[in-house]
Amino acid sequence: MSEKNQEITVVALDAMGGDNAPGEIVKGAVAALQAEEKLEIRLVGRKEDVEKALEGLTYPADRLTIVDAREVIEVEEHPAGAIKSKKDSSIVVGLKLVKEGEADAFVSSGSTGAVLVGGQLIVKTIKGIRRAPLAPFIPTSKGPCLLIDCGANVDAKPEDLVLFAKLGYIYCKHAMHIENPKVGLLNIGTEETKGNALTQAAFPLLKDCKEINFVGNVEAREIPAGAVDVAVCEAFVGNVLLKTYEGVGKTLLSEIKGALLSNFQAKIGGLLIKKTLKKSMKRFDASEYGGAMLLGLNGLVVKAHGNATSKEIKNAILQCVEFKTQHVPEEFKKIFGLEG
Amino acid sequence: MSEKNQEITVVALDAMGGDNAPGEIVKGAVAALQAEEKLEIRLVGRKEDVEKALEGLTYPADRLTIVDAREVIEVEEHPAGAIKSKKDSSIVVGLKLVKEGEADAFVSSGSTGAVLVGGQLIVKTIKGIRRAPLAPFIPTSKGPCLLIDCGANVDAKPEDLVLFAKLGYIYCKHAMHIENPKVGLLNIGTEETKGNALTQAAFPLLKDCKEINFVGNVEAREIPAGAVDVAVCEAFVGNVLLKTYEGVGKTLLSEIKGALLSNFQAKIGGLLIKKTLKKSMKRFDASEYGGAMLLGLNGLVVKAHGNATSKEIKNAILQCVEFKTQHVPEEFKKIFGLEG
Repeated sequence: MSEKNQEITVVALDAMGGDNAPGEIVKGAVAALQAEEKLEIRLVGRKEDVEKALEGLTYPADRLTIVDAREVIEVEEHPAGAIKSKKDSSIVVGLKLVKEGEADAFVSSGSTGAVLVGGQLIVKTIKGIRRAPLAPFIPTSKGPCLLIDCGANVDAKPEDLVLFAKLGYIYCKHAMHIENPKVGLLNIGTEETKGNALTQAAFPLLKDCKEINFVGNVEAREIPAGAVDVAVCEAFVGNVLLKTYEGVGKTLLSEIKGALLSNFQAKIGGLLIKKTLKKSMKRFDASEYGGAMLLGLNGLVVKAHGNATSKEIKNAILQCVEFKTQHVPEEFKKIFGLEG
Repeated sequence: MSEKNQEITVVALDAMGGDNAPGEIVKGAVAALQAEEKLEIRLVGRKEDVEKALEGLTYPADRLTIVDAREVIEVEEHPAGAIKSKKDSSIVVGLKLVKEGEADAFVSSGSTGAVLVGGQLIVKTIKGIRRAPLAPFIPTSKGPCLLIDCGANVDAKPEDLVLFAKLGYIYCKHAMHIENPKVGLLNIGTEETKGNALTQAAFPLLKDCKEINFVGNVEAREIPAGAVDVAVCEAFVGNVLLKTYEGVGKTLLSEIKGALLSNFQAKIGGLLIKKTLKKSMKRFDASEYGGAMLLGLNGLVVKAHGNATSKEIKNAILQCVEFKTQHVPEEFKKIFGLEG
């Protein structure tokens, strides 16, 4: 890292990505700077738009700088094509800051595909890592569970799952401060012999893996109750689980809200339970945990939801600080016997 | 069918399977007989246990007979081994009634594995069908969605998915009376080129399939809102989706219940909303739809939940009546140009 103070985490933030950009993004940046002293932010995007969004906000100007980038990658664009053609987009410019050591991490609410492809093409994986998994947190009754992999590289090999397990274990142990994170292999039964060709081949490899706390197969049904801290799976399956999680939660809550507005008695009841229910549901609010991480790169890349609010952006930025200060990159490199 | 009246549906019912056997099973049978005239039930299980469970119940004795079976397959037993060794178990005896044409369908709350393996080994698939998919209904805002396949035969081929799509379409059209059921391919993106090797290969085959109403890829997130009537997938993925659905629903509702009991104000509010909420949640109660069907066999095999109550058993039995009277088996045979 050229002239950077190793005590400070520098986060490049895509000011143009997502439904609420640049307003909520910029607000999230300011909130993160207020919460964390040892943090600098590079807001990447159209200078005039970012400056306008900053108007009226109070922030430490010495720790917030704007990096001009004139283009924006839209969600409907083909990810690989956009990364190659839009060299002056906020995503490409931001990722290059990480590649060149000017930033430790990049956070974006923009196109998931472009962030995933760009992360691997520009920041590149740590030597020895064939593919970087996308790992979001999903809320459970006992706190967050890291679901790894939910990315775009489907049809993983058994060895990939072992690597995902190691990355997830290290992340949860160091950045999440979980004593000895429980790692489970997402499967359709708990017995060792259950599953498809991939999980059957991965199980003995994971069992032999002494560096992690492998607790065996875990069924999708057990995850919401908090059975494991890390759930390892192939990306297609992880993606289906993640989206089912979001879909069922959203639909159930909207049904309940609808019911509470359907008649006078229910409306009164709804008012009486509002506060308690909100508190109880907070644990199931994914935005509390920041964004989904692309792990195993030479730096951290975090993808926040497309509709992320300032709270989620702030949490995603603080996630990057934890990643850096708890020396997660160094721990990752140790997997391959590389210098920490 | 030897001497059976073709107007009557005969259902073989496993009286010994599930957590609530034989009590709830027998009650479900009696309720189904009361709801449907053209129905006969063979209660399969230990005669004395079944007789005891029937004590005090009022039912049409001419339409309810007991078929003695002395053994019970436990859920922890190895499915294939149990099917082979326990010839006098309620599952084997019940499935044989279907095989021999003495019954049109078999319903069980017992070991899922034994029912799946036994269904394929004893009842056997319709000529041309390589594997029989397990298809449960999952509740959505717009009614039930048939999720096909969630069974034990993982790693399906593209052609299997096409067959699942046809079976699901026919079932929903005829037995569920849905005008032109929407069939979606469960995938991790909506574009034609998205997904893994399996979905990419299956997509063009489904698109070319003129007998069904293929609406393209469907993401797991859209299913709870009722985007499709039939969601086609490989069994491992289907199983994960199904169990995530159950797990998230259960955990969220238990969190909400907990919140409503946590303080006095919330308790009062809870009482006020109870009736409305219950009505609204009824749509999300999977037991309303009966059980998961093993489709494509020479007869219908239905697997009800292990903790099924009499209501679910009754609905599973009535599901078999609809299957028979709407000539679904004949429609299935037409897929392969066989006599209807």
